[in-house]
Amino acid sequence: MAVDFSHTYAVIMAGGGGTRLWPVSRKERPKQLLPLLGQETLFQSTVRRLEVLFPPGRIIVVTVEEQALEMRQQAPEIPDENYLIEPAPRGTAAAVGLAATVLQKRDPHASMAVLPSDHFIRNVDLFHYLLKAAFEVAGDGYLVTLGITPTAPSTAFGYIQQGRPVDGDYKYPVYTVVRFKEKPDEQAAQQLLRTGDHSWNSGMFIWRADTILDEIDKQMPQLSGELKVIGQAWGTSKQKEVLNERWQALKNETVDYGIMEQAERVAVLPAGGLGWSDVGLWSSLFEVLLPDMDGNIATNSSLHLAHDTHNTLVYAGSTGRLIVTIGVDDMVIVDTGDALLVCKSDQAQKVKEVVEHLKKHRQEKYL
Amino acid sequence: MAVDFSHTYAVIMAGGGGTRLWPVSRKERPKQLLPLLGQETLFQSTVRRLEVLFPPGRIIVVTVEEQALEMRQQAPEIPDENYLIEPAPRGTAAAVGLAATVLQKRDPHASMAVLPSDHFIRNVDLFHYLLKAAFEVAGDGYLVTLGITPTAPSTAFGYIQQGRPVDGDYKYPVYTVVRFKEKPDEQAAQQLLRTGDHSWNSGMFIWRADTILDEIDKQMPQLSGELKVIGQAWGTSKQKEVLNERWQALKNETVDYGIMEQAERVAVLPAGGLGWSDVGLWSSLFEVLLPDMDGNIATNSSLHLAHDTHNTLVYAGSTGRLIVTIGVDDMVIVDTGDALLVCKSDQAQKVKEVVEHLKKHRQEKYL
Repeated sequence: MAVDFSHTYAVIMAGGGGTRLWPVSRKERPKQLLPLLGQETLFQSTVRRLEVLFPPGRIIVVTVEEQALEMRQQAPEIPDENYLIEPAPRGTAAAVGLAATVLQKRDPHASMAVLPSDHFIRNVDLFHYLLKAAFEVAGDGYLVTLGITPTAPSTAFGYIQQGRPVDGDYKYPVYTVVRFKEKPDEQAAQQLLRTGDHSWNSGMFIWRADTILDEIDKQMPQLSGELKVIGQAWGTSKQKEVLNERWQALKNETVDYGIMEQAERVAVLPAGGLGWSDVGLWSSLFEVLLPDMDGNIATNSSLHLAHDTHNTLVYAGSTGRLIVTIGVDDMVIVDTGDALLVCKSDQAQKVKEVVEHLKKHRQEKYL
Repeated sequence: MAVDFSHTYAVIMAGGGGTRLWPVSRKERPKQLLPLLGQETLFQSTVRRLEVLFPPGRIIVVTVEEQALEMRQQAPEIPDENYLIEPAPRGTAAAVGLAATVLQKRDPHASMAVLPSDHFIRNVDLFHYLLKAAFEVAGDGYLVTLGITPTAPSTAFGYIQQGRPVDGDYKYPVYTVVRFKEKPDEQAAQQLLRTGDHSWNSGMFIWRADTILDEIDKQMPQLSGELKVIGQAWGTSKQKEVLNERWQALKNETVDYGIMEQAERVAVLPAGGLGWSDVGLWSSLFEVLLPDMDGNIATNSSLHLAHDTHNTLVYAGSTGRLIVTIGVDDMVIVDTGDALLVCKSDQAQKVKEVVEHLKKHRQEKYL
């Protein structure tokens, strides 16, 4: 079905905290609000990437109160009313449901692309092409997800198994979804990589607002009921009061497990070559930033003096300190004002455990 | 010969700079003035170690103007006139000659132990025992040196090859010296370790003032001549003027190569079990401080959070920053206000090259 792109919307999901990029990422300074990869924050890069396809008036941001002020400053071109503030985190199903409810009230023909605020995409043109192709498929009533063709046996992502091609004259290959799989262990990840019909679940979804609301109605009737009440109050003087009241009762649930897994008309576009990264670990910066001849990355190379150093990331915060490495291989060094991290690259996932340790020992000032 | 210990003096040599403990050690804050191993500075530990045998009035410090003020504050019990200030560094031969000249003028029967200001000795009782034994041998007109029994094939030290036992009824084994050897390469160091008759040159010398002055007269007549002029002016109103004037003309020369190598009556006491370290490299702190069960050393353990970390030194300067290590083995991490060093332990000798690099690139603020 041909798509009328004037009814398409981008919904940026930006509520998360994220502890795996500690010590730069903190409770008050979550990953998406940080200029991790250069001058722009991840949120700003996400907005800029979308503004090619969507005018700011059709970019929606779902977030929490604590982050909204900073986001408005970082992307002032997005109208105030497009920031949807969750009273409390209730998972992506509720967040997506709220966005769909608000959009459908504004525009009964709305289609939406649900996109994380904190990912990196190198090949932006291909991304735009895929989004357009996905909106086409979504126009036919599918819940569409972008799958990322795996480049490694990752245990950090859920996987999507694709089935037979979806009938229809689409400009990009589209498949039915056999099932969504949780994060595998290492052995299973090795096997999944070999199958060729599994892709990473990137958390990018494209659908019509009415399609997802119908699906929520079928599978999550409680959420659907609350969303209807919220939708009726939306735009009235009771908007905030009703939202706050109804939100409290919601269960924490993700789109993936609350909706996608049981839905019938689900499709996946497997995307290779996007140069996508969820920037989920310090070590993922090696995929995103360009290493020098020795495989090293320094966010401020004038402050890094490398001596017999290879495949090492030196993230210089705003301390302005000189960082000297001698005989260092495969390391991540992150220097911030009050904390220093020195971590073997292949153990970057353990940063999370460190943050949990700090939490447990009530070291609030480092969280 | 029985020794009258009331004529023995300790001469602490404290002029050096030292770049191998950068970034803590700097031009203005040389190694011996730093509390590297705890509350006391290395200089203070050296003084305290000697005060058991020598009253403060018989402890002499040879140093340079830039360091003297700080030393006087660190060891106020040593009388002002015992600080001998070199107008400029001219090597250990000149420094030792000056001390011997001044001591002999004060006390014609003076014997002196020449000792570095910046070494560590765990077994202080044995050290005292060896010093007393060495003074006995020195009483018979020998130039005595303490050799350190090697515990590894080190390329960081010169070696002393011992010959036959020295005749005499000494309470500790004493040997003649066959030769002094410069720092060997790795292969040679391996061989030297196996011979059993080589010890490390620790820079600790014991002799009578008259013996060393006679030897200087024989081997370094220019130095001897200047020292005599300086000695005559010492204690007069012209002391400083004459010292400054005569000092300029001196050649830079060490005791080892300027005097010891050619001297005839040289003896060595090979010392095992002293727990000696020259604290010459960051990695030598593993010999000096006591590692925990994982082989780690943290100078401030409340600021080090170790996760799967082994044989790693975390030196927390005064920054008070939390230092987290994950998957780190055999490393040295040194955190200071304006510079951070991350270095594989077995490459700690390369710190010197880094300092040379900084010098070459005129990064004065880090020197």
